[in-house]
Amino acid sequence: MMNLTTLRPNIVTALPAPQPLHQSLTVTFTYDVHFTSGLFQTENLLLAQAVNSDRTEDPKRVLVVIDAGVVQSHSHLLAQIREYVRFHADALTLAGEPVIVPGGESVKNSPDWVNLIHQTVEQVGLCRHSSVMAIGGGAVLDMAGYAAATAHRGIRLIRVPTTVLAQNDSGIGVKNGINAFGKKNFLGTFAPPTIVLNDFNFLTTLDDRDWRSGIAEAIKVALIKDAKFFDFIETHATELAQRNMAAMQQLIYHCASHHLNHIGNYGDPFEMGSSRPLDFGHWAAHRLEHLTHYALRHGEAVAIGIALDTTYAFLLGLLSPFAWKRVLETLQELGFKLYVPELDNYLDQPDHPESIFRGLGEFREHLGGELTLTLLSEIGRGIEVHEVDLTLYQQAIALLQTF
Amino acid sequence: MMNLTTLRPNIVTALPAPQPLHQSLTVTFTYDVHFTSGLFQTENLLLAQAVNSDRTEDPKRVLVVIDAGVVQSHSHLLAQIREYVRFHADALTLAGEPVIVPGGESVKNSPDWVNLIHQTVEQVGLCRHSSVMAIGGGAVLDMAGYAAATAHRGIRLIRVPTTVLAQNDSGIGVKNGINAFGKKNFLGTFAPPTIVLNDFNFLTTLDDRDWRSGIAEAIKVALIKDAKFFDFIETHATELAQRNMAAMQQLIYHCASHHLNHIGNYGDPFEMGSSRPLDFGHWAAHRLEHLTHYALRHGEAVAIGIALDTTYAFLLGLLSPFAWKRVLETLQELGFKLYVPELDNYLDQPDHPESIFRGLGEFREHLGGELTLTLLSEIGRGIEVHEVDLTLYQQAIALLQTF
Repeated sequence: MMNLTTLRPNIVTALPAPQPLHQSLTVTFTYDVHFTSGLFQTENLLLAQAVNSDRTEDPKRVLVVIDAGVVQSHSHLLAQIREYVRFHADALTLAGEPVIVPGGESVKNSPDWVNLIHQTVEQVGLCRHSSVMAIGGGAVLDMAGYAAATAHRGIRLIRVPTTVLAQNDSGIGVKNGINAFGKKNFLGTFAPPTIVLNDFNFLTTLDDRDWRSGIAEAIKVALIKDAKFFDFIETHATELAQRNMAAMQQLIYHCASHHLNHIGNYGDPFEMGSSRPLDFGHWAAHRLEHLTHYALRHGEAVAIGIALDTTYAFLLGLLSPFAWKRVLETLQELGFKLYVPELDNYLDQPDHPESIFRGLGEFREHLGGELTLTLLSEIGRGIEVHEVDLTLYQQAIALLQTF
Repeated sequence: MMNLTTLRPNIVTALPAPQPLHQSLTVTFTYDVHFTSGLFQTENLLLAQAVNSDRTEDPKRVLVVIDAGVVQSHSHLLAQIREYVRFHADALTLAGEPVIVPGGESVKNSPDWVNLIHQTVEQVGLCRHSSVMAIGGGAVLDMAGYAAATAHRGIRLIRVPTTVLAQNDSGIGVKNGINAFGKKNFLGTFAPPTIVLNDFNFLTTLDDRDWRSGIAEAIKVALIKDAKFFDFIETHATELAQRNMAAMQQLIYHCASHHLNHIGNYGDPFEMGSSRPLDFGHWAAHRLEHLTHYALRHGEAVAIGIALDTTYAFLLGLLSPFAWKRVLETLQELGFKLYVPELDNYLDQPDHPESIFRGLGEFREHLGGELTLTLLSEIGRGIEVHEVDLTLYQQAIALLQTF
């Protein structure tokens, strides 16, 4: 591959510009997503084995970053982690005190928490072969992942997602990030974790909104990829809304499978070309989170984004009325709202800072290249379009308000 | 690879923890390193063709980040860039005004410059398929590369290195970063550029220290990999010191080839395992830059680091006295100092914040895993050791002072 020229040790004369050198690098990332209950019970070997997977003799140093909401809901968790580490002292050791950070989107809205983790990494002398273990919802995992990815050019990252959304979607992928300049995930990197440990026990203490929120990403992937999965969600919508754990475990596992499959098998996991992430319904969702100052959770905003783009596809004549109704009714059955007043802001001024339509431009800018929206042609099949009809979108919003 | 379970649409019962999902991602990065003279002369098509390599119809947007030192030495450069872009308007367009940043290490010592680039990216609405074009020495490329790698999770990066060091080493690799907490490159990522454009004309205005500095990395790679290349440098040391451009072009090309080859062909370009970067002489070099408050340039510090580790290998009995003398005399012939007083700080207190020996621990921590130093067993052959004899290092320092 390299074209090393022969040196001319005794002739030093003016030379024509040499041929370009071609570089080609292939980097392989592997990680496992595990499912368990009671991750930090001393008899559960998963974490100890996972941390020590490269079988060095020394115990691995782990810096714990943990969501304050999780600490609050699981009052014995910190003590349990300490006990676990004491019991498995041959496998791992804590690097410093756990760093407790706020849960929810606020942790992504300032660089301070990333800085705090960097500072702690420096203070405890964490090296690249040690790990940050991030425990929490998607926002905490995003923020801690960004901090870990940028300290020493990337410290290993163990993710312990504690919400439905994080276990089936945001916590198992390759992205991290924080918000800046009022823009979602403006700063971040692509950085796969070294392992993901999904502990279903954390789901028992979620409030109803967080329980429900994560279902939106499962509906998203079902609608664009897997009609049978949508059937499953539709059939079990009531049980899911009533917090049936077995149904939720199946939903999470199946959604996570789809998500990993999409990242791993579509040839461009770091989205360097024009390959698309699974972002059906997301242009409006990101915008609504911002416009509601994150009063809407991500999944709630995604549900509205799905309802909006599904309705638009129906009005375009792309999707049948029957399929359209199934989608909206399933969302309602699960308890999602389909409309918030922010959808109606400044519809006649698409570039207004408070208009929902400004999200289309930001979406294009964030992903790069030409505008690409995913729409549905039927349940289980997404198609891409590159043009939008704002008048039809206004009608879609009006329909959502009265549905 | 994915193990999508069959859904059980009508049976919702408690389930055993499902099998882990395995993810494997392969990401390929390719880029070319070009050599030219007069990159921004309108008749030079290289840049226009490089920017437009994916042949979309629209001109590509480029945000220029440029080293103030380069602007000062090349007073017509900004006008020339504007003229180039006007002439090649079908291929590229400027996104906003060029961002002028300080040259040298100071640009890496505060997060402000990274923040400024982020802010500009946001203001001009640069997307992931647009490019940041960083023009300058290694420090500016490192800083701008970090900013580009973290905005929108990675904007494309065109590097235009303007120093010997950046053209043959730091500007052609896969790393970026800034300093934090007094530690070199504490923050950064692995992020290959999309293209590197080496313009030899920039070398003509370097001051003698910068001209010389970059030679140190070539000596480094020659000593651990390529005895013939060391012969070349030794033979042409006087011409190189006297700024013979043809000799320098050969040196840069050959050093760049080795560097790319090492990154591309040793199986671990992002250093996730225990593979080593080309860091012979660098533990002391990083430390000396810090201890001299960057009064020493990187290459000057590397030359001292090489002299130190070569002398240590000689005292260990690993390297012949003849080879040892050749290395030190070649460095001297090129005009490098082999000793600075900071080497002698607190030698009896290896953990003292001002001791050179503290660099050993920081080096280990930054790379992770066990301490690994590269030493020479002969010219052209590096070997790895994992233990150091501080008394012998003290003797090596004493020897350098009197050489």
